[in-house]
Parts: sequence; structure tokens; C-alpha cells
Amino acid sequence: MLVVQKFGGSSVATPERIKKVAKRVVDTKRAGNQVVVVVSAMGDTTDNLIDLARQLTDNPSDREMDMLLSTGEQVSIALLAMAIDSLGEAVTSLTGPQAGITTNDVHAKARITGINTERLFKELDDGKIVVVAGFQGQNDNGDITTLGRGGSDTTAVAIAAAIDADICEIFTDVDGVYTCDPRVVPRARKLDCISYDEMLELASLGAVVLQPRAVEFAKHHNVVLHVRSSFNKNPGTIVQEVSSMEKQMVVSGVAHDLNVVKMALYDVPDRPGIAMQVFSALAERNINVDMIIQSANRNEVNDISFTITRDDLPKALPVMEAVTEQIAAKGFTYDDNVAKVSIVGAGMVSNPGVAASMFDALAEAGINIQMISTSEIKVSCIIRADQVEKAVSAIHSKFGLDSENEASTAC
Amino acid sequence: MLVVQKFGGSSVATPERIKKVAKRVVDTKRAGNQVVVVVSAMGDTTDNLIDLARQLTDNPSDREMDMLLSTGEQVSIALLAMAIDSLGEAVTSLTGPQAGITTNDVHAKARITGINTERLFKELDDGKIVVVAGFQGQNDNGDITTLGRGGSDTTAVAIAAAIDADICEIFTDVDGVYTCDPRVVPRARKLDCISYDEMLELASLGAVVLQPRAVEFAKHHNVVLHVRSSFNKNPGTIVQEVSSMEKQMVVSGVAHDLNVVKMALYDVPDRPGIAMQVFSALAERNINVDMIIQSANRNEVNDISFTITRDDLPKALPVMEAVTEQIAAKGFTYDDNVAKVSIVGAGMVSNPGVAASMFDALAEAGINIQMISTSEIKVSCIIRADQVEKAVSAIHSKFGLDSENEASTAC
Repeated sequence: MLVVQKFGGSSVATPERIKKVAKRVVDTKRAGNQVVVVVSAMGDTTDNLIDLARQLTDNPSDREMDMLLSTGEQVSIALLAMAIDSLGEAVTSLTGPQAGITTNDVHAKARITGINTERLFKELDDGKIVVVAGFQGQNDNGDITTLGRGGSDTTAVAIAAAIDADICEIFTDVDGVYTCDPRVVPRARKLDCISYDEMLELASLGAVVLQPRAVEFAKHHNVVLHVRSSFNKNPGTIVQEVSSMEKQMVVSGVAHDLNVVKMALYDVPDRPGIAMQVFSALAERNINVDMIIQSANRNEVNDISFTITRDDLPKALPVMEAVTEQIAAKGFTYDDNVAKVSIVGAGMVSNPGVAASMFDALAEAGINIQMISTSEIKVSCIIRADQVEKAVSAIHSKFGLDSENEASTAC
Repeated sequence: MLVVQKFGGSSVATPERIKKVAKRVVDTKRAGNQVVVVVSAMGDTTDNLIDLARQLTDNPSDREMDMLLSTGEQVSIALLAMAIDSLGEAVTSLTGPQAGITTNDVHAKARITGINTERLFKELDDGKIVVVAGFQGQNDNGDITTLGRGGSDTTAVAIAAAIDADICEIFTDVDGVYTCDPRVVPRARKLDCISYDEMLELASLGAVVLQPRAVEFAKHHNVVLHVRSSFNKNPGTIVQEVSSMEKQMVVSGVAHDLNVVKMALYDVPDRPGIAMQVFSALAERNINVDMIIQSANRNEVNDISFTITRDDLPKALPVMEAVTEQIAAKGFTYDDNVAKVSIVGAGMVSNPGVAASMFDALAEAGINIQMISTSEIKVSCIIRADQVEKAVSAIHSKFGLDSENEASTAC
């Protein structure tokens, strides 16, 4: 088998842990597989580098931040390669650019545009384990770019797709994907199997076992993912295309996300193109907008509400000031004391009343819903941040996900 | 003017110091110059990375060490670029490979084979300050290489040569090149000017203000160097080709070097090709041999003595074992309790008796000479390590270099 294995920052945080990762990689190789390993920066490295930058300037350029932060993964690949070498297996480390990973030009949030697999295959053909730096690539100008949040997962999946790997194993500090966060609801159950779409919704909803971009990439290129623990050899959760919808549980999981800010523009003139103006201004600054709700108002004015991630708030505020003036809205407000709670399930589309059950669960728990958005396989609600645990627990029970219930989770 | 400035690791050891370097670079730019800056890794970074590697393996591969250590300079260039940017000057950082620096394939001790200046000139033409990572390049395989000891000096000089810079300023923690180490002889004087050959001898003799490789490169490409303090704006020492030998002092300086091990092969059969066998075996392992003395013995056997640097001793011992057997010598010994003390001066060649004066000074100080080697512009002696300060002081006085003497040091 041709296997891609991805280890995150906590798995390589110390020399001792790097040795354990090396052992695991070597075991996989010696079981008769070809192995490409993707690693993140060691533990706090990235945060320490960001601290250094902040001591120099409040507003570092994205290009130079990429130059700085990409060193973190480079340290990891060199150390892991040394550890693998010392176990007697041939190995070579490659930076993102050396591994042929090309991206667009959006520093700090680059997207992979292609992978030239020549070097990767040359090293694999030479019988080597290849250790690749996650999170990074190179633009057409030869500059180092980073992929932003979850970049290492994306690197692993993109490489798996490019070299047509049999499986892409994502090692984490949990045993797999759960019906909800086990730290919030102890009755949470591990899923043996989940579809890309469900995983995608869970990931984008703050169940951060896997980054949504990585899942999207995997879905698009049909890369089978295996989310599993780096601490044991138990099988984790397989993420793949599901052949029959019938097999799916109505609701696979309950996700929550505290990294949310609710914004509202009020008394927006009711003219065509207004929404476009607002959201393209945000898109220009690379601010991702999530839930969008436009509510009709009296007097030919509307309110437009939407959510963004907390990190993007400082960038969003000046954009909102400018836009408010530009479209002659009355003003805007934001509220960061909110959370998003969501249910996800591929079976939802053929089962009416699922959303209603969720609202019911929240009402019974005395929780007010501030915003609602739905898709074919998910329902999300914005609620008060301090009610999130109660909400997840109530919904988890409502849909029979608690672990005393023996609903099948088989693929 | 087109100026290359090089700052070492201690100059960029903290964010505060990086800000000072940024200020100095920006001042140079604003005085109407184009500026390329070459920097080393911050302070202890390299040592810390080496420690990390040692926690994983006693014997890391040179390729992976290069992958690891090259991150140190990459951090520095990103941070310095941020600091320069925050002072309002356009700037871009470039890794060694991005700056077009190509090397041969000898990891950890690579030699620069060429510089593709396209990117450098593009950035300069755009009005930018360019910050380049010292110490690193890329081989034909696209792998990161490091240049070994003094690599950042070499990078600066090589870039200055490639872009035909008007001057290459080497910033250090001393005011320039002295007649000897001021920590050893407080009466040492700063030289205003020195020739490449003299600097080359001083550098290779352990006066580590400038690395010999860098001086060699500068001599070969006629790059004018200015060795000066990073703490003040005083003029330092200019290193350049000297038009008239007459101007030179007989002895410019006294150098000493404790990073020396004396090795001796004894009872070596007196056959042609023997010396070649010994020194090519050492050269194959990239071990630099310095002073070589072959003394005729009775009975058609010789003794061969030579010196190497202390760092190379672990690599040299197995080579010596093998060679001793191969050439049927009786055995070999080594002594690391030695030091090298040397006088350097371009005027020496036309002044007989200079070596004799040096031996005289040592004899008067009661110091035994173990080995002697001479060139046109230097005389070196191996003595006991604990006598080195006394030796330097005695020689310095003997040649009238003490600062109460007002011998001219003008160019």
C-alpha cells in the first residue's frame, strides 16, 4: 500500500514524541508499505515565532510571516527524518516547495494549485520514507506561502491525491470522530465511518478533528481518510464517499463552535446589489463569511446578519465601517458572546422534521435561538455562548446519540 | 552606491537588536544607497537546534542537519524584514536558494558555485532593501546546503562580487582588525587598512574577525571589505588589494589560535607518494590540514607532523588508524594541548630576519617552539596552549605594535 500519514504539532512537540512518531512510521514501512509522512511544527513553535514577530511590529506583512512561520515545519521534518534514520530506515525530508507543492499568491491563506510529484516518486522509488513539511508551498514567484489554519491536513490530503495513495491517515489526540465533543457530553460515541459531506459540515462547524479544506480536497479527489489516535493502534473513523444513503443515521453528530462573531447591518436600503457590495468587500480582505440571513423589514429597508470567525474581527471592523457608509445603511453591530451549535447527517434530507426536533430540544432546555441556517445535511443555530454545553447535551440526547443507545455506526 | 551589509548572530540575537540593525540598514538606504543585507541566525538559535538534533541521534545526516540549521537564518531574515518594513522602507527577504545561491553537494561544508542575480536585481530595481539569509544555498538537486563555519561572511562577499557592489560591510562586535587580540594584549591597535593576503593569514590563524573563505573570495573577486562595529559609526578596517608594498608595515599583526590539534605519524617509510596517501585520505573526509612538516630521519623513515582543527579530531582519528596501517608507519600521536601563534605582514618578504625576531621574542619569554611554518607574509609557531598569552604579548612588543608606538597604519 501507498500510505500518507499526517502528524500534528502536539505529536511532535518534544524529541521523545518525535521518536514515537518515527517508530510508528517505520512500523508502517516495515509492514510492507510505501510511506509519505506530513508533519506540522513542534508544539508551541508557531506561537513562539508569532510572539517574536509581535515584538517587532504590530502589522507584519503576510509574506514575511510566511517566511517566518514556515521554518517551524522545516525543523520538524529534519528532526523526524533524523529519528527515522536512526531506526535504520532510509529517509529524506522535503520542504513544501521541494515536495513540488505550488500555491496561489494569497500569503498566510494560500490554496494549493498543484503538486509536481517527480521528486516525491523519485524518493519513494529509491525505497525511502519521505517526510514532507505540512502547511507550506511556493507561489509562481518562488516565494514561500503558508496554507493557513489546518494547512497540514490539507497538505497530507493533497499529496495523497497527487500520488494516488491508498489511504491518508490523520493522527490526532482523539480516537476518531465522535457524535459530539466528548469533553462536553461524556456519552458521546465514536463513529466507525462518516461521509465526506458529514465530515465537511462537522469540520466547518467547529468539530476540529479535521479541517474542512482538507475534507473538501479529499471528497473532490476521492481520498479515503482514516482519522485515528497517535497514542494507540485502535481503528479510528474512516471518512469516505458513502454508497447508500439508506445506511446513514439521520443525525451523525452534534457540533459546536465558539470561534464565532455575529454581525448585523441594520436599515440597509432595499436595492439590488447591496448584498454583493457587502460580501465582496469582506471577500477582498479574505474574510470568510459563514451564516447569512437577510430579513425583510418595513419601509424598504432590510437587516443583514452574518457570522465570521473571531480571528477575522479586527480586519472586518474597518471594512464594515466603510461599507456601512457606502451603502447608506443606518449602522452595524457585532456580538462575540455567541456560539454556533449544529446537527449534521446525510440522512436528514429524506427525514422531514429533523430541524424541528432540534429547535424543540433547544426550547426544552430554555435556550433562545438568535439565527438559523440550514443545508441538506445540517442545521445550525446561533445561541448565547454560555449555553453551548447545555445545548449540545440536549440535542445529543434528543437524537438518540448517547452511548447507551446502540444505533449502528458501521460503514 | 551599491552596498552589501552583513550582520552576525549576536547583532540579531534579540528583537531589540534586530530593531537597531533595521535602523542602521534604513539609514544606509536613506543616505542614497541600494542595500543588500546578509544576516546570520539569532544568537543561540543554531546551538539550540543542534541540541534538539542530539536528543534524537548521535549521528545525524549532514543533509538533515542542513535542513534543520538553515531555518535559523530564515527566521532572522523574516524578522529583520518586518523591522525594516515597520520603519517605512520597502523590503523583501530571500532565503539562500531564493537569492539564487547555488553550491556544490558537500552538505554542512558546501562551497558556492554561482549566484543567479536575477531575483536580487529585480528586487533592488523595485527600490527594495533585500535581506538575504547567510550560510545557505541550494545544490543542483534542489536540496538546502549550508556553507559551514563563517558561511554568512562568505555569502555577503559572494553576493557583493556577483552584483558588483561598491563595498561589503562586515559588522562585528569589535571596531575593526587589530594588531592582535585586545583581550590578550590591551596595547593592541586598530588597523585602518590591511591587504587581503594579510587578512587571509590573520583569519586562517584564528583572528576570527573575518572568515578566511570570505577573504579569499573577496581577494579573488576584488571586493572591498569594511570590517566595522555594529555598536557605533566609527570607521573600521578596510580590507583591499594594496597598491604599494612599500607602504606596508613589516608586521601588521599577531594572531593566535587555540582551535588546533597537532598530529604526528612516526617512522613513516621513505617512499614517493606516502604524503599524498596520508593527506588525500584526510581530504576525502573534508578534514582541513594546516601546517605540515616532514622531517628526515635516519634509516629511511620519516616523521610527518601536521595540524588540524579541534572540531575535526573525531573524524580524523579513524582515518589516521587506517592510514597508519596502510602506509606501514609505526604509529601516530596527537596533542591537543597546543596553540598556534603567528605574525603576519605583507612587508615581511622584503625584510630578512623577521622570523628570527619572532623566535627571539619567544625564547626571551621562555617559550619552547614545537613546530614552525612560514610563508611569504607569515610565520607560525606551535607552542604549548597555556603559554599563548605570554607569547602574543612578547611578539607584539618585539615588533613595536604596542599602541604607545605611533607607526602608521594608514592605507
